[in-house]
Amino acid sequence: MNEVIELLLQHRSIRKYEDRPLSDEQIRFIVESAQAASTSSYMQAYSIIGVRNKEKKQRLAELSGHQPYVEANGHFFIFCADFYRHTVIAEMEEANMTDSLESTEKFMVAVIDAALAAQNAAVAAESMGLGICYIGGLRNNLEEVAKLLNTPKYVIPLFGMTVGYPVHEPGKKPRLPLAHIYHEDAYNQDEETYKKQLQQYNQTIKHYYTERTGGARTDTWTGQMAQALSQPTRMYMKKFVEQQGMNKR
Amino acid sequence: MNEVIELLLQHRSIRKYEDRPLSDEQIRFIVESAQAASTSSYMQAYSIIGVRNKEKKQRLAELSGHQPYVEANGHFFIFCADFYRHTVIAEMEEANMTDSLESTEKFMVAVIDAALAAQNAAVAAESMGLGICYIGGLRNNLEEVAKLLNTPKYVIPLFGMTVGYPVHEPGKKPRLPLAHIYHEDAYNQDEETYKKQLQQYNQTIKHYYTERTGGARTDTWTGQMAQALSQPTRMYMKKFVEQQGMNKR
Repeated sequence: MNEVIELLLQHRSIRKYEDRPLSDEQIRFIVESAQAASTSSYMQAYSIIGVRNKEKKQRLAELSGHQPYVEANGHFFIFCADFYRHTVIAEMEEANMTDSLESTEKFMVAVIDAALAAQNAAVAAESMGLGICYIGGLRNNLEEVAKLLNTPKYVIPLFGMTVGYPVHEPGKKPRLPLAHIYHEDAYNQDEETYKKQLQQYNQTIKHYYTERTGGARTDTWTGQMAQALSQPTRMYMKKFVEQQGMNKR
Repeated sequence: MNEVIELLLQHRSIRKYEDRPLSDEQIRFIVESAQAASTSSYMQAYSIIGVRNKEKKQRLAELSGHQPYVEANGHFFIFCADFYRHTVIAEMEEANMTDSLESTEKFMVAVIDAALAAQNAAVAAESMGLGICYIGGLRNNLEEVAKLLNTPKYVIPLFGMTVGYPVHEPGKKPRLPLAHIYHEDAYNQDEETYKKQLQQYNQTIKHYYTERTGGARTDTWTGQMAQALSQPTRMYMKKFVEQQGMNKR
């Protein structure tokens, strides 16, 4: 094991930060690292918005489900799927890209590009001793977020990322057994094996919560998942994405 | 700048590898690093399939647009969006998840989860001196890929990743100007600024290709994008994803 892999394995989400903004140099390293990630067919179909403005951060914290660390951090990044610049190119080059840009395939390209860039940003931040937390809650109300950030058509804010100097060191949440996530040569569809792995994993998770909360929480993972997925959320998303011009055909 | 950021900035796609398989330990480090990435609401909505079988690799190389490095590498990983295990959980926990699982929101969750995991895998591989290349060509024919890998419903193979010992050191493709990708406090919609940045970037790219090919190629980036995006590709994707049970509502 080398130091980079050690860093990756040490990851945990940090939700409490010192009141200390990132330096311009730190921000630049983070964005340059994001840009260095692979990009589908060189399309670079994403953008990053860094939020410094205090009122905007407050509003974004409200919109993201009142998570205080969206407001109180060293810097708040928002990663967007972005084909807007390609529509500018369509004009410059007199090309018709509509069918392409509106396709589910290109929507996937943009989401994947943005996520690869984001994970490089996360690793870069953590390598500088900073902590990070992805903010999926940003998708609670993208209509409002888009207005606040003035994002044009063909841009979809996907998630936020808080970055800052950590003031806590939370436990590392155990992941699914490797054999459950990783298959060789073909997908393992054996439902019985799957169930056994999940039951074992439930024991791990129960133990983790019991230890951390002195017995107050005894959740299992499958219980958490059943609860979360029984309640459909953000069902406006299909329409919103289509209104932005993507995932339509 | 620290060594991790240096590693991230050194990234380039490697398309030629020694005939030398990855060790089980290397594969394990790569998958464990992938698993350590953040995951939306702890959902872990992805899977990884590693392909060792020679015939399958050959077939996947054909299906991905006859890219020889899909066959000739140290290991071939395939990253999948995956809510299949959650359908097993629905059964175990007697929960109804259909609306959730079929939503565009959850499709995005799974694609983002898979991409974050993949980029950690890429960084882990590169930290061990290995080279990587993402294979978006896997999406040329997902119907066939899914059959070959035996993936069930609620699983979508998103892209491949070849990993191995590099035998070439290609140039680093210049990225868009940082100011074009990164905005502060709001999205910069000023079309004129955008066009100027793109024209400057075109000069950078032209120079890059001219230098590398002794003048044989003089592409611009906007020219490449116009050509690529004028031809809609993989237009079966919307239907395929819906057939797999995702992105439907």
